[in-house]
Amino acid sequence: MSDAKTQKTALVVSAHSADFVWRAGGAIALHVAQGYRVHIVCLSYGERGESAKLWRKGQMTEAKVKAARHTEACAAAEVLGASIEFFDLGDYPLQLDNEALLRLADVYRRELPQFVLTHSLKDPYNYDHPRAADLAQEARIIAQAEGYKPGEPILGAPPVYCFEPHQPEQCDWKPDVLLDITSVWDKKYQAIQCMAGQEHLWEYYTRVALQRGVQAKRNIGITAGRDIIHGEGYQSLFPRVTENLA
Amino acid sequence: MSDAKTQKTALVVSAHSADFVWRAGGAIALHVAQGYRVHIVCLSYGERGESAKLWRKGQMTEAKVKAARHTEACAAAEVLGASIEFFDLGDYPLQLDNEALLRLADVYRRELPQFVLTHSLKDPYNYDHPRAADLAQEARIIAQAEGYKPGEPILGAPPVYCFEPHQPEQCDWKPDVLLDITSVWDKKYQAIQCMAGQEHLWEYYTRVALQRGVQAKRNIGITAGRDIIHGEGYQSLFPRVTENLA
Amino acid sequence: MSDAKTQKTALVVSAHSADFVWRAGGAIALHVAQGYRVHIVCLSYGERGESAKLWRKGQMTEAKVKAARHTEACAAAEVLGASIEFFDLGDYPLQLDNEALLRLADVYRRELPQFVLTHSLKDPYNYDHPRAADLAQEARIIAQAEGYKPGEPILGAPPVYCFEPHQPEQCDWKPDVLLDITSVWDKKYQAIQCMAGQEHLWEYYTRVALQRGVQAKRNIGITAGRDIIHGEGYQSLFPRVTENLA
Amino acid sequence: MSDAKTQKTALVVSAHSADFVWRAGGAIALHVAQGYRVHIVCLSYGERGESAKLWRKGQMTEAKVKAARHTEACAAAEVLGASIEFFDLGDYPLQLDNEALLRLADVYRRELPQFVLTHSLKDPYNYDHPRAADLAQEARIIAQAEGYKPGEPILGAPPVYCFEPHQPEQCDWKPDVLLDITSVWDKKYQAIQCMAGQEHLWEYYTRVALQRGVQAKRNIGITAGRDIIHGEGYQSLFPRVTENLA
Amino acid sequence: MSDAKTQKTALVVSAHSADFVWRAGGAIALHVAQGYRVHIVCLSYGERGESAKLWRKGQMTEAKVKAARHTEACAAAEVLGASIEFFDLGDYPLQLDNEALLRLADVYRRELPQFVLTHSLKDPYNYDHPRAADLAQEARIIAQAEGYKPGEPILGAPPVYCFEPHQPEQCDWKPDVLLDITSVWDKKYQAIQCMAGQEHLWEYYTRVALQRGVQAKRNIGITAGRDIIHGEGYQSLFPRVTENLA
Amino acid sequence: MSDAKTQKTALVVSAHSADFVWRAGGAIALHVAQGYRVHIVCLSYGERGESAKLWRKGQMTEAKVKAARHTEACAAAEVLGASIEFFDLGDYPLQLDNEALLRLADVYRRELPQFVLTHSLKDPYNYDHPRAADLAQEARIIAQAEGYKPGEPILGAPPVYCFEPHQPEQCDWKPDVLLDITSVWDKKYQAIQCMAGQEHLWEYYTRVALQRGVQAKRNIGITAGRDIIHGEGYQSLFPRVTENLA
Repeated sequence: MSDAKTQKTALVVSAHSADFVWRAGGAIALHVAQGYRVHIVCLSYGERGESAKLWRKGQMTEAKVKAARHTEACAAAEVLGASIEFFDLGDYPLQLDNEALLRLADVYRRELPQFVLTHSLKDPYNYDHPRAADLAQEARIIAQAEGYKPGEPILGAPPVYCFEPHQPEQCDWKPDVLLDITSVWDKKYQAIQCMAGQEHLWEYYTRVALQRGVQAKRNIGITAGRDIIHGEGYQSLFPRVTENLA
Repeated sequence: MSDAKTQKTALVVSAHSADFVWRAGGAIALHVAQGYRVHIVCLSYGERGESAKLWRKGQMTEAKVKAARHTEACAAAEVLGASIEFFDLGDYPLQLDNEALLRLADVYRRELPQFVLTHSLKDPYNYDHPRAADLAQEARIIAQAEGYKPGEPILGAPPVYCFEPHQPEQCDWKPDVLLDITSVWDKKYQAIQCMAGQEHLWEYYTRVALQRGVQAKRNIGITAGRDIIHGEGYQSLFPRVTENLA
Repeated sequence: MSDAKTQKTALVVSAHSADFVWRAGGAIALHVAQGYRVHIVCLSYGERGESAKLWRKGQMTEAKVKAARHTEACAAAEVLGASIEFFDLGDYPLQLDNEALLRLADVYRRELPQFVLTHSLKDPYNYDHPRAADLAQEARIIAQAEGYKPGEPILGAPPVYCFEPHQPEQCDWKPDVLLDITSVWDKKYQAIQCMAGQEHLWEYYTRVALQRGVQAKRNIGITAGRDIIHGEGYQSLFPRVTENLA
Repeated sequence: MSDAKTQKTALVVSAHSADFVWRAGGAIALHVAQGYRVHIVCLSYGERGESAKLWRKGQMTEAKVKAARHTEACAAAEVLGASIEFFDLGDYPLQLDNEALLRLADVYRRELPQFVLTHSLKDPYNYDHPRAADLAQEARIIAQAEGYKPGEPILGAPPVYCFEPHQPEQCDWKPDVLLDITSVWDKKYQAIQCMAGQEHLWEYYTRVALQRGVQAKRNIGITAGRDIIHGEGYQSLFPRVTENLA
Repeated sequence: MSDAKTQKTALVVSAHSADFVWRAGGAIALHVAQGYRVHIVCLSYGERGESAKLWRKGQMTEAKVKAARHTEACAAAEVLGASIEFFDLGDYPLQLDNEALLRLADVYRRELPQFVLTHSLKDPYNYDHPRAADLAQEARIIAQAEGYKPGEPILGAPPVYCFEPHQPEQCDWKPDVLLDITSVWDKKYQAIQCMAGQEHLWEYYTRVALQRGVQAKRNIGITAGRDIIHGEGYQSLFPRVTENLA
Repeated sequence: MSDAKTQKTALVVSAHSADFVWRAGGAIALHVAQGYRVHIVCLSYGERGESAKLWRKGQMTEAKVKAARHTEACAAAEVLGASIEFFDLGDYPLQLDNEALLRLADVYRRELPQFVLTHSLKDPYNYDHPRAADLAQEARIIAQAEGYKPGEPILGAPPVYCFEPHQPEQCDWKPDVLLDITSVWDKKYQAIQCMAGQEHLWEYYTRVALQRGVQAKRNIGITAGRDIIHGEGYQSLFPRVTENLA
């Protein structure tokens, strides 16, 4: 049983309200299962750029699209076992300013996460994604500064991982971590199914999970005995500090 | 207490007979302290290129230089707690061929290491170093193949780490692992002192260890409470497979 | 004879009012000759940074410089057979904001281009250039979104090409397309001559065209029989979708 | 109907006898359907490194493995409609020398291909693959030289494409061409099924084809009306010479 | 003795008020000793992000921290022999806008420096640093434009050098210049000691100087006779124009 | 007047017998004019790959081609004022082995050059070029080793510069030095004219020189007063050690 004071936490910074599901749903469910509290920040609902199916229904307004996306994202977060909040900053383009930056820094100060998940640093198909990653990185730095809201407990140096973009090679994204999510795949797929507006992506990201699973197995060696079926890839932005290289 | 069958092992592939000391002495001592058997392969003695002080003594022959280097390297390995063998392939240039490749593949098959340490992939100051790294990589691949000496137990997929070259930026070497070697620094420095022929490097690599220590501390956060003083940097060549991101 | 509904179109996004001439004049004339409608957007007149000769005349005001640049650019566009519009956003620095972004997105929606030409992603000699390229890319993405001005026909995924910067290697610009502009070189050179204020560049860009011509010939092979004299280089930002590799 | 003199040709240089199937089977079938003659050179049978399942059967010899691999590869080539030859140079490591280089140069001279398919330039999991790519490139250059076997018709400058490695990001492989292989997918899958010894890869490469298909669709735009289901990715090594950018 | 009209000048653009000391103190003192006038612009005091020790004293306000940092920086500049000015733009995040850009462009116009020193282009630990480097670059470009404040003498094309960040490899910073600062090391260390609030960095940057000194010696060759002990590394952003390659 | 003992020297390592003319003729003539002794090593005559025009004459043998190339290269070297020697190792492929490596190391020991010019590290159009650059680098390293032919004066650490390949961007070659060769352009062009067999390159490399000249001028600033017309670009492989940054 975990205690609020000592429970480990993780933070996910998602540009649009569904990104955390496709790209980090496995990591979220896995760490929740390990006793972590995982908190998700959705910077926007992706109402303009990631809701094509909803708009095609007709009779839509931005408010209706946002409400639908809100409902879907909350349902997915619940399946995964994470808490979620929405900054509702608008998308295409994602509207970031100093206020959004400090608001996210305050989330860091409140959550004091052990690690952070966010977007890739580059994405020629989606300018909101790298912008979110930049915000996540800079807010983390501000939360580390003694001179920002002096007196508050400051953030340590949690590792930051970039989750997988839609077309990984075009984003110069190269995974250096393969996370074994086999044990929580059913939860991730259940969360994926909450995204009624983007059904065309369900099978795409199922295949992504299977490919990363095969690759994970290759990188431990076929004789390792551990059966990995589903995986998620991550690219880390900082060196890992450790006492063991195996 | 460890048993030969179940003891974990590590393999170090060193181009010249002193490289393992400056670049990986901390990792060796640390894993020996953790119960690993660590085995070092020195591909050459570095008799031409890394023995300037010995040659300047005058009255030297290649045989004498090799003998002196052999003695120093054995002493350093003993201090660190590792076993060592010498391929004596000649340096400047390091003379590699198919026979050397398969000989090293056989070492992999014999040791079945959990991880491998070797040189950086590029070094414009030293062509033997990347050549050794290439050999270490290719021999590992051959040792993984069922069709090489069929029937023998094959190698899994141990991670390979490149240790720090002399001028890291010029070698495009970027550490993604910072190993905390504080607890074994005294052993590493004792091993360094075995290298009588290269005294000018003792303080250089002491400073390297202190800089990597400060950087390691930075990457866990100053509030982490763990006191890191000495470090070693490594660049990994393969993605890490894991179930935890903290 | 082409019909407004079915005519293929291309869009050129130029930071300053002369860039499209030096860097893409051949592509413009060539596709006009092939029946395309080509539309040019000049984000600024380059009144501060690219009009040295005009300012040196003395008795100049910003308004006079802009007027002269407007006249030159219109003349060049006419020679090339393209339509042109001016956003007049100011240069050095180019002043981009959300309004400029959506204004350009609307041009995309109106033109629905088959391909897009703009600046390189990096240029240490000119900060306006990569800024224009960024705007061109992000406006394209917004024009693709169903939720932006819902109901309007949305943009497909036209390829985007970066044209050649003044010092290509310093901009990390690497051409992966060499366009044969031999058949329209006379038109391009005529357009170049409209740029009275930058006469020192006429011969520079003539030589660029000749070098790219020689290189184009090298990349089809000397036995190909096709006589290429003038070329333009482009770097594509997205993978090409095709059914033939020859 | 095509005539030997004028028929267009393509050349595939494969390190091991099955690589051409997983990685380029679609391109082969597609161009055969377009009237090309496609010729495959297998530098080795992959008898050591790519035949694990055969070796595990027991009672195997290298000769038996090679024979089985020969049969499978010929069957796959026949399904795809290509001719095939085997250099039988040995694998793990692939044994290349001057003789192999000139032998391949002579194949280039004989085939005079319009384009060439081979491996990625880097592959940390497989040293034979980049070695094959290097050979394919250098043999092409020699076949272009007037002074090599003077008097023979020389090769032009056919584009060279690297097909997809097993773990694309780890190989720094970035596709800039997405080939629509929907129309020949059934042939490719039939050829894949000839590889009885590597059944675990059938579904892996089916998923690769589906992912590249989705990505191809994304890069033409969803409104393009063309239905792409299966794709193959390629990275080109030389600039494309063209007269049209759409 | 130098005359204001003809004296050579250099410009240092520092994000926070101490950066110029650790990273460029040697270059400043060295060129002052050679008769240059060196001017330092501190864009902020680093009051939030680089003043941890001051904040930990308690009873602090932002005004007090700034005043302390002002005093320290002025003392260090005096030791080094440079003039200094403070833009006081705020840090974490450094608040840059058009006004700051033109203010810095005006400093360029006033100083007309022979060379410029600033931060690295990337720093995942500190977003203010690359932002300062960007400002320094763009202001330089504006100061070169005839149309900016027409009539004023314009800037030439002074080389720009990036000084060493705290964790060089993580910033993709690669020195291509090693400056011999042996003759002014005592001045640099005296300036370092002015930074009472960051005592933990004194020894860190002493070791940096010693490592760069050893590397400088390696890059001239041990037989060169010149005794280099302390160095500073720089990465240049533009090609060097010269008439001699030795 | 210079004395053999104290005269400064430079070494040029050229894969084929004409490369030094197109790529480094200006640097050679310039340093000869400054009193340097410049020595050229041609590893091959380029008889197969760079002598198309000679072969097309008919009635040719390899011996005749080599003789013609020898004559041309000697004439060009004489015009430039340099000494020249030929290793005659064969081209396409350039045949390098241990003997060639040590032979070149001995040239380094004999010449003790202040700087070295050679090919780019990559060239997808010409495998002999990077191979020559590799040899030039490794031979330099061996000549620095005290243990190679102990007792001989060893080489220092002369900078190595890569001269411009035929298609610079395709070779990932990026010049960081622009050499002003205006004063010796007539000599370079005279040397170029000695290359009767490659007349199509005369104008190509004249344009290269003019483009690099314009770029050199850009990088010193138009107000610098120095009139640069012709230039050569170089990429340096090692950091420059200096005491002045202007």
